[in-house]
Amino acid sequence: MKKIGVMGSTGSIGTQTLSIVRKYPDKLQVTALAAGSNSRLLEAQVREFHPKIAVIWKEGAAADLRGRLADMDVTVLSGMEGLLQMAVQPEMDILVTAIVGMIGIRPTIEAVKAHKDIALANKETLVTAGHLIMPLAKENGVQILPVDSEHSAIFQSMQGEKHSQIRKILLTASGGPFRGRTRADLAQMKAEDALKHPNWSMGKKVTIDSSTLVNKGLEVMEARWLFDMELADIEVLIHPESILHSAVEYDDGAVIGQLGIPDMKLPIQYALFYPDRYEAPGNKRLDLFDIGKLTFEKPDMETFEGLKHAFEAAKIGGTMPTVFNAANERAVSLFLENKIRFLQIAEVIKAAMEEHKVKAQPTVDEILEAEKEAHQSVAKNIH
Amino acid sequence: MKKIGVMGSTGSIGTQTLSIVRKYPDKLQVTALAAGSNSRLLEAQVREFHPKIAVIWKEGAAADLRGRLADMDVTVLSGMEGLLQMAVQPEMDILVTAIVGMIGIRPTIEAVKAHKDIALANKETLVTAGHLIMPLAKENGVQILPVDSEHSAIFQSMQGEKHSQIRKILLTASGGPFRGRTRADLAQMKAEDALKHPNWSMGKKVTIDSSTLVNKGLEVMEARWLFDMELADIEVLIHPESILHSAVEYDDGAVIGQLGIPDMKLPIQYALFYPDRYEAPGNKRLDLFDIGKLTFEKPDMETFEGLKHAFEAAKIGGTMPTVFNAANERAVSLFLENKIRFLQIAEVIKAAMEEHKVKAQPTVDEILEAEKEAHQSVAKNIH
Repeated sequence: MKKIGVMGSTGSIGTQTLSIVRKYPDKLQVTALAAGSNSRLLEAQVREFHPKIAVIWKEGAAADLRGRLADMDVTVLSGMEGLLQMAVQPEMDILVTAIVGMIGIRPTIEAVKAHKDIALANKETLVTAGHLIMPLAKENGVQILPVDSEHSAIFQSMQGEKHSQIRKILLTASGGPFRGRTRADLAQMKAEDALKHPNWSMGKKVTIDSSTLVNKGLEVMEARWLFDMELADIEVLIHPESILHSAVEYDDGAVIGQLGIPDMKLPIQYALFYPDRYEAPGNKRLDLFDIGKLTFEKPDMETFEGLKHAFEAAKIGGTMPTVFNAANERAVSLFLENKIRFLQIAEVIKAAMEEHKVKAQPTVDEILEAEKEAHQSVAKNIH
Repeated sequence: MKKIGVMGSTGSIGTQTLSIVRKYPDKLQVTALAAGSNSRLLEAQVREFHPKIAVIWKEGAAADLRGRLADMDVTVLSGMEGLLQMAVQPEMDILVTAIVGMIGIRPTIEAVKAHKDIALANKETLVTAGHLIMPLAKENGVQILPVDSEHSAIFQSMQGEKHSQIRKILLTASGGPFRGRTRADLAQMKAEDALKHPNWSMGKKVTIDSSTLVNKGLEVMEARWLFDMELADIEVLIHPESILHSAVEYDDGAVIGQLGIPDMKLPIQYALFYPDRYEAPGNKRLDLFDIGKLTFEKPDMETFEGLKHAFEAAKIGGTMPTVFNAANERAVSLFLENKIRFLQIAEVIKAAMEEHKVKAQPTVDEILEAEKEAHQSVAKNIH
């Protein structure tokens, strides 16, 4: 029986994680849950899965939840203190970090120090603090198992192979809902257009990031740390069908890739059961006859400037990826509120990066300081 | 230094194997060579690679070669006796079985008994005697490493995975030069049409087999033994671009596949260096942008009846795959000599299968007897 904690249990990845637990009650046991604000759903999850700890961000909501869950044997906590306590809770083998944003950094670090394996869906952790997390994981003998479909595909494509014989990573991208559009088209796009992802059902933030290709930029940064690769050896391929989830090229020219239907439950489950593979919930299987063709094209970084800025931020390193990420986070919020236009997202990121004075090898405090600075830059440049 | 023997050194696989040895003289050493009839090329190969043993089929040719190679420290042998001696020669770690036909069975068995790893390109060995070879290999701790690009791709896609969690094998086929043609079209096809393979450069026999899809049928039989799979769990996919060389579907729905340019040097090299991967000679690499798209369709077994007969022969088992293979071998020779028409190849196979009385779990002698019987059936039905 594997004991799991789910940080971000009411979101898209969190609820899909719990659907896997529901299918495999003899293999997985939920011992901790944390949610942002959906206390109604968190309550239902506590009643179904009986975790020892439940965390909700605001103390007011936690107090309310404590009352409603008085009949249950659960400790309800709140805030960063709650997340940090959850991260080190003794009865937990693996922590699924499915929250969005840099809020995941500290709990992930604490979990790693407490020897918990990490099923990593919180990409900001590696984007901003990969230089801290990866050595720490190594030191503590902890596995960082990717939950992103692309990183899971890469990880699967590396099984049984030698790292020294990897030539490059082929990171696929659907291209999002605006693939093939011009800048003139993009200038007109509204949030509701950007939220119509052709293949994947995901949270709002990541869906917008997919439409700008910023998501792919963050994934490049994540892949770099996760797989200890040079930036130049990570190539982005636009693959609109989202069937080849990513691939790895080796020294002999062989490319090993993982294909499958676009369903996040597959990579989540792979991380939970690694290295074993069991039937996935829903059990829809890939049918290449039905799909007929897989296509590939180069990403258009002149139109989708967010990806270009991402490669630049990754190249500069230090606190720059944090600034890239934090400026984007804020810009996406503003776009979702119709306060800025689609093309302004990349502009706002670029401005924040230009204003930033980079710190190499930043500490967590310096990372969080850079985040704050980027938020201020966005606020200043928008208002 | 790995010591290798090449049985069939003057053919397509053989010469490509030697081009790899030429690139890696510090890693590979040729200790034995065997050819069918091209004594001119065999002589040149002996002068370049200095094997201890060289075998040529006819004793007349061997006697001649002995004279011409009098200045070299090499033993020149002939016939089956020569092949059997070569198979067990002490200074050899791995034997590349690149000869065409059932002539490979006995030498392969002897090599396995002598604890030589096998780089298997002689598919007839497993098609006809898989039930003998595979248990023998297991018993002797011998690796049977596939050299066929499809089987190599499947083998690569199984690295680091559990056999019990395999759902099925996706065996890809280019579809050959006649893909999409009707039976009326096929009725007109000549040997020169069938020899124009769109992607792969191979020997004549296998190129014709590719045009009839008989080759894919033999590969299904081979895959079954090599990977210990149920016939029902091997699916043939027509994939005209020959980029996805084959794939494996697992219980969780993930499909792991190996992609690459169509170049036999890749799978040959993988077998020689397994599990390591070094740069391949020629060094042309897969460019998915350049290729643009990969397509998939169902095989048309009504038009290409050879594949249908193959599945039937495999299902029946025993000596039936031998009859399928032997009848096809003879039919292809007759077709290449313009003595039968294209569609007659499948007809001749079918007739031989219908006339045959199956023996389950045949011995090598019974297999060779079934071969002879199939040859007689073809002769009788043609003349």
